[in-house]
Amino acid sequence: MSFSRSIHLARKSLAADQEPLVCTPLVGATEEAVARELAVILPKRPDLLEWRVDFFSGIADSGRVVALGQMIQQQAGSIPLIFTRRSIREGGQPIPLTEEQVFELYAAVCGAGCVDLFDYELSIEARYFRQAVALAKATDCRLIASYHNFQETPDAPTLVAQFIAMEHAGADVAKIAVMPKDLRDVLTLLEATLTARHRISLPIISMSMGAYGSLSRLFGWLFGSSVSFAVGEQSSAPGQIPIEQLQTVVQILQHALKGQ
Amino acid sequence: MSFSRSIHLARKSLAADQEPLVCTPLVGATEEAVARELAVILPKRPDLLEWRVDFFSGIADSGRVVALGQMIQQQAGSIPLIFTRRSIREGGQPIPLTEEQVFELYAAVCGAGCVDLFDYELSIEARYFRQAVALAKATDCRLIASYHNFQETPDAPTLVAQFIAMEHAGADVAKIAVMPKDLRDVLTLLEATLTARHRISLPIISMSMGAYGSLSRLFGWLFGSSVSFAVGEQSSAPGQIPIEQLQTVVQILQHALKGQ
Repeated sequence: MSFSRSIHLARKSLAADQEPLVCTPLVGATEEAVARELAVILPKRPDLLEWRVDFFSGIADSGRVVALGQMIQQQAGSIPLIFTRRSIREGGQPIPLTEEQVFELYAAVCGAGCVDLFDYELSIEARYFRQAVALAKATDCRLIASYHNFQETPDAPTLVAQFIAMEHAGADVAKIAVMPKDLRDVLTLLEATLTARHRISLPIISMSMGAYGSLSRLFGWLFGSSVSFAVGEQSSAPGQIPIEQLQTVVQILQHALKGQ
Repeated sequence: MSFSRSIHLARKSLAADQEPLVCTPLVGATEEAVARELAVILPKRPDLLEWRVDFFSGIADSGRVVALGQMIQQQAGSIPLIFTRRSIREGGQPIPLTEEQVFELYAAVCGAGCVDLFDYELSIEARYFRQAVALAKATDCRLIASYHNFQETPDAPTLVAQFIAMEHAGADVAKIAVMPKDLRDVLTLLEATLTARHRISLPIISMSMGAYGSLSRLFGWLFGSSVSFAVGEQSSAPGQIPIEQLQTVVQILQHALKGQ
């Protein structure tokens, strides 16, 4: 059975029959902290790593960023790496860079060939987003367009419209993460994912955050989300579940689905 | 946190803080088969047992039925027992009894004091349902009004109306089990449960059946379902999950919810 779409990369491969792909975040503030995270995370065999560079204290030094990206790539071996600067507006850390400088950093890291995908927020000024589309093509990286809302869960038609806008903007993967105020909002996110799965042709990543949202991290793949973010050592967003527990629940569900 | 309502019994007790209560079915055709099931199931410590008497080949002999009910009660110790004849129309086995005789059987079993709850379908002729309400009161048993649909999932307003009708009819617990044609139908059942949780004051039991519906057996308690049916030895409805796997997923979810 295939509930979510495969993600195809230029230089590494992601198992086409693996649902969901499990991605663990790297949120270390220093090279040493990131190395320690990798030492804990890699034995747990995630399918993807996401390096949240907005947590890295050396972010203003693109040489240090590229060097750390290369270190991660080397350690990760066959595991693909997502490069992500999350903006403050969408839940990220404060950084001392202008958007122009952030884009230059993305260009340096992608140009050095040490990442396989990068995340760029759809809400960023359109000219930068267009540059990001061009950067992805030029460097054979995949562009994840993203939308995060830590305040609320917009209604399902609004979420579906966001997914469609991401496809129109030229992304390779469409990602939405929203905060539920109650369990009904979790159903809304799942419903929007299911609808978008039939409305756009891109792989989708979606999640509801926080305590209630942890449900979507466990079961969202059935509704079309290709990736679930799980805690390796330290979470990068509320509601992330330890990777071993996610794997356990996924196995039980796969067994239940096959048993019919 | 309390997502579902507690069920209060006259002679035994169900843990008020246990969510969900796990109920395993007994579907043996003979006394020996039921005894074998109990030997497998009881060490797994379910919270409830449901005896599906329509599977029992001796159903036409009320003496045998009462004697087997007493044997189950004795073996079960502190674990409460639900007595259930499922009609063919709602997914049960063919039995050689008229509805009048079925009601007499319920009266004999409840009168003997060997069960704590009994399940009676809301769709059964109203005069029998009224008798069932009176029987429950007279024998200090709890009446579970039930509605099963193995063909489809009616829309959420229809399901909510059924829950309300069960309360109006005098039930102590309201149970709905429906078959999904797709994952959207599973969301519909969960949404209807969440709505009914706020519209009626009875404890609710709800589930979506089949492969997709197994989702609701794992996390329907968050949406207000007090009981999840899990396989002890042999399932009584499609999509039931082994009791150990249900317990594992529930623990992971409870941890995720507390961790926030």
